[in-house]
Amino acid sequence: MKAKVYVTLKNSIADPQGNAIRGALNKKGFSNVEDVRIGKLIEIELGDITKEVAEKQLNEMCEKLLANTVIEKYEFEII
Amino acid sequence: MKAKVYVTLKNSIADPQGNAIRGALNKKGFSNVEDVRIGKLIEIELGDITKEVAEKQLNEMCEKLLANTVIEKYEFEII
Repeated sequence: MKAKVYVTLKNSIADPQGNAIRGALNKKGFSNVEDVRIGKLIEIELGDITKEVAEKQLNEMCEKLLANTVIEKYEFEII
Repeated sequence: MKAKVYVTLKNSIADPQGNAIRGALNKKGFSNVEDVRIGKLIEIELGDITKEVAEKQLNEMCEKLLANTVIEKYEFEII
């Protein structure tokens, strides 16, 4: 069973990396780009477990290790 | 118009960061986790353009700036 975890900054948190990339894109001629936000995509091979166990584990993994829940939010999809 | 770009290492490229996270997850009791791969999620606000223009731009952005196409592959979805 495979899962994709998306960890992104909370909307209230500034994203200097995203701003830098937006500036670079604007300079390269993509002047229509208004905003850029950078996050993490974490692909996890979970082995042979049930979907219920996978969901429980993924929440725990995000809370304990994959996301800094003070400044980040997370969502995941099980594939 | 908003897009999500997913930039990940090509399958043939080793992922030491992913391996470190896998090890940490295994140590925290998630012994069923077999593999972890880390990538980037880039959310872009493209402004008022057509879907065709957006697709063309996103390919160009990835090739020119967002992905290192020697070691990375990319895909995107327009929302």
